[in-house]
Amino acid sequence: MPLEGNWINMKEKALELLKKRKFAELRLLLNDVSPMDVATMIEELDKEDMLLMFRLLSKDLAAETFVEMDSDNQEMLISVFNDKELRAIIDELYLDDVVDIVEEMPAIVVNRILQQADPETRNSINELLKYPKDSAGSIMTIEYVDLKKDMTVEEAFNRIKQVGVDKETIYTCYVTSKNRKLLGIVTVKDLLLADKTTTLDKIMTTNIIYATTLEDKEVVAKKFEKYDFIAMPVVDKETRLVGIITVDDAVDVIQDENTEDFTKMAAMQTSDDTYFKTPVWKQAKNRVLWLLILTLSAAITGTIITNYQTAFAAVPLLVAFLPMLMDTGGNCGAQSSTMIIRGLALDEIRVGDVAKVILKEVGIALLVGLALVLVNMIRIKLMYNSSPLVSQLMIVVGLTLMCTVTIAKVLGATLPILAKACHLDPAMMASPIITTIVDMCTVIIYFGLATKLMDVIPSI
Amino acid sequence: MPLEGNWINMKEKALELLKKRKFAELRLLLNDVSPMDVATMIEELDKEDMLLMFRLLSKDLAAETFVEMDSDNQEMLISVFNDKELRAIIDELYLDDVVDIVEEMPAIVVNRILQQADPETRNSINELLKYPKDSAGSIMTIEYVDLKKDMTVEEAFNRIKQVGVDKETIYTCYVTSKNRKLLGIVTVKDLLLADKTTTLDKIMTTNIIYATTLEDKEVVAKKFEKYDFIAMPVVDKETRLVGIITVDDAVDVIQDENTEDFTKMAAMQTSDDTYFKTPVWKQAKNRVLWLLILTLSAAITGTIITNYQTAFAAVPLLVAFLPMLMDTGGNCGAQSSTMIIRGLALDEIRVGDVAKVILKEVGIALLVGLALVLVNMIRIKLMYNSSPLVSQLMIVVGLTLMCTVTIAKVLGATLPILAKACHLDPAMMASPIITTIVDMCTVIIYFGLATKLMDVIPSI
Repeated sequence: MPLEGNWINMKEKALELLKKRKFAELRLLLNDVSPMDVATMIEELDKEDMLLMFRLLSKDLAAETFVEMDSDNQEMLISVFNDKELRAIIDELYLDDVVDIVEEMPAIVVNRILQQADPETRNSINELLKYPKDSAGSIMTIEYVDLKKDMTVEEAFNRIKQVGVDKETIYTCYVTSKNRKLLGIVTVKDLLLADKTTTLDKIMTTNIIYATTLEDKEVVAKKFEKYDFIAMPVVDKETRLVGIITVDDAVDVIQDENTEDFTKMAAMQTSDDTYFKTPVWKQAKNRVLWLLILTLSAAITGTIITNYQTAFAAVPLLVAFLPMLMDTGGNCGAQSSTMIIRGLALDEIRVGDVAKVILKEVGIALLVGLALVLVNMIRIKLMYNSSPLVSQLMIVVGLTLMCTVTIAKVLGATLPILAKACHLDPAMMASPIITTIVDMCTVIIYFGLATKLMDVIPSI
Repeated sequence: MPLEGNWINMKEKALELLKKRKFAELRLLLNDVSPMDVATMIEELDKEDMLLMFRLLSKDLAAETFVEMDSDNQEMLISVFNDKELRAIIDELYLDDVVDIVEEMPAIVVNRILQQADPETRNSINELLKYPKDSAGSIMTIEYVDLKKDMTVEEAFNRIKQVGVDKETIYTCYVTSKNRKLLGIVTVKDLLLADKTTTLDKIMTTNIIYATTLEDKEVVAKKFEKYDFIAMPVVDKETRLVGIITVDDAVDVIQDENTEDFTKMAAMQTSDDTYFKTPVWKQAKNRVLWLLILTLSAAITGTIITNYQTAFAAVPLLVAFLPMLMDTGGNCGAQSSTMIIRGLALDEIRVGDVAKVILKEVGIALLVGLALVLVNMIRIKLMYNSSPLVSQLMIVVGLTLMCTVTIAKVLGATLPILAKACHLDPAMMASPIITTIVDMCTVIIYFGLATKLMDVIPSI
């Protein structure tokens, strides 16, 4: 039993067999490796060896390995495949995987794929390509087992055995009417536990949770999370069954949405590719827009500061507290906005909860603020005890800190909910924007208080 | 067919039937609703109605609904259940769910649950409770279908029919030896497509990817993502099969890990509960530690500033650019660290890639930095054209900006990888810490350059 600990050994052995050109042995060895691992191994080879090893794989394994490869390598392989090889791969693949591959390929490769697909497959690919990028239709497969409600359990099993080989999942089967309307769901478990002569209408579940083709795929993925499905039917506007989504695709959507949130929360535009596959100029492009917006907003804070030149001309020490006040405000805002953005994403917080959230954040701000003020008071007292202004400084910095923390927490909690209420993505309202806004408030409050409360500074 | 659009209507109808005490009708209606939705509905009721409605549910539905409820409500229901009711629920539940529930309950409730469980279940619960919190063992279930390798396909089906009712998944079955060693995997699909008289050793897959009981559950969840499993076997040190993990639990782990990363990246300690269920004092506690560390670190930046009092006493305008420089540095660092932390989490970036990453980030820093410098030069020129210091300011701010962006990008990229190399969580090295470090560098460079390059400032 080649267990996973042996994976490294197996890889070495495979590479050695390849080097020694012992293809029969290599073929046997590879048949025991999972497609994902074959793909990882094969992709590290140079072009010729890659093709050589790929051609050693059995038909099934070749197709499954192909799916797991990276689109550049897929394109390279397609370019060296002869028509027969390409046709064999397309025949073996699930339709939704073919569509995923087609979406990444340049037009010339797409044409070759469509030419080699049989007419029925070609039509299906074209149909699937029409669904919008973020829709349930774009991630569904049309390969499912459909049954009729007057079939017996035995007939159902016969049909599954007959058509099941090519289907992505056979464990959930769909009962449809003559005009393809979805009537019910029967699982193989139901079938196994029922009597052979029972008709499906007696055992099918009619309480169906389904997706519609144009529904947002994120919403669909959340239903998988909530209801613990392994597959979910997709219907069109007339509730006709057009496809199914399987849990592995839902997991991919969940991870993509998480990556998108991480990216947006750090003030970047999202990239469809991985870090290394996104070229430097594109990374720069994704990042620069928000940086420019934020740099110009920060300039406003700078302009506000220039209005208070007299204040820090009189007490230069005031400037020394700016980084602490601004950083703390930014961090407090980041904490709150992160909690709220994540809560909204997981449906734990809703727009209607805004008052409850604000109340909670004010509570947290008071506690956290008190701790921060206390620690900073002690620090100021210790560091600047010799200065005649020490008590005035403590009051001004302490009051500002308390205000900053409260404003940061309230803004960090409110803005993401506000974005959601306006049908914008709450992840936009994260640390960078909130920091910029809180900075302005902090500077105004800080120098405002200093001007009012410190006797050495002439009021402006 | 009560489709999802009708869910609101159904809920209203159910509440009306409850109000009118039409229990027979209500029972019929509830049988058609999914457990998750029954739980949502029932949890909005007051205690008495909740119990009333819960008692109307069929045995299966009651158990499945119970799992979906929140632990406070579970505790409340257990406290009013009589022993028979409690026993019925425990009997119906999957063991891993019982364990999840037990983990949330106070000791007195746990004792009652263990008393009502049959001795075998009690032993199993106790076994499962022993696995560490983050281990594969803690999320596995011990209810799987095990088969022997000399069984025929027909015998296998008979066994599945016989034991399958209570198993969480029957679609992947496990072939074990006499001493419970895992020999192979057979799916129901394999069984359906094979001849009745074939023995399992002919059709089972022996190339098994499995988890071990003490493996980190995050690593296991990643395997689900990578290999698109719906279930995965868990073995002990002697490769004896002890349980299985199903994909729904893996999805929960993935989401929990994401939440943990979001939380850590915003300088917070993680909470096991949702936003609203974590009380204010606990939220404050989770947030204050990092805030205190960061506030004291920011104080160092403040102290550095005081060393340059002569600089901004001579040119007060210098202070006006501090927020822009510090915020931009923070934002650039946040962007890079987010990309790298996410890439590490998804295994797209590895520790060995550090040189490649740094090179890439320097490239991005140059492009982004140039754009930022250009825009800021224009802004300074427009805003301060009347000042005799305008060109010197442009040089000092521009150079500092370029250095800050580069330092921020390089630190943001390097520190998470360094953390990973030291077996720490890369998510720690996110925006807040990087901002604080970059701030110090920025202040030193900025005032250093100003002191050197501006003739009005006496060198220190």
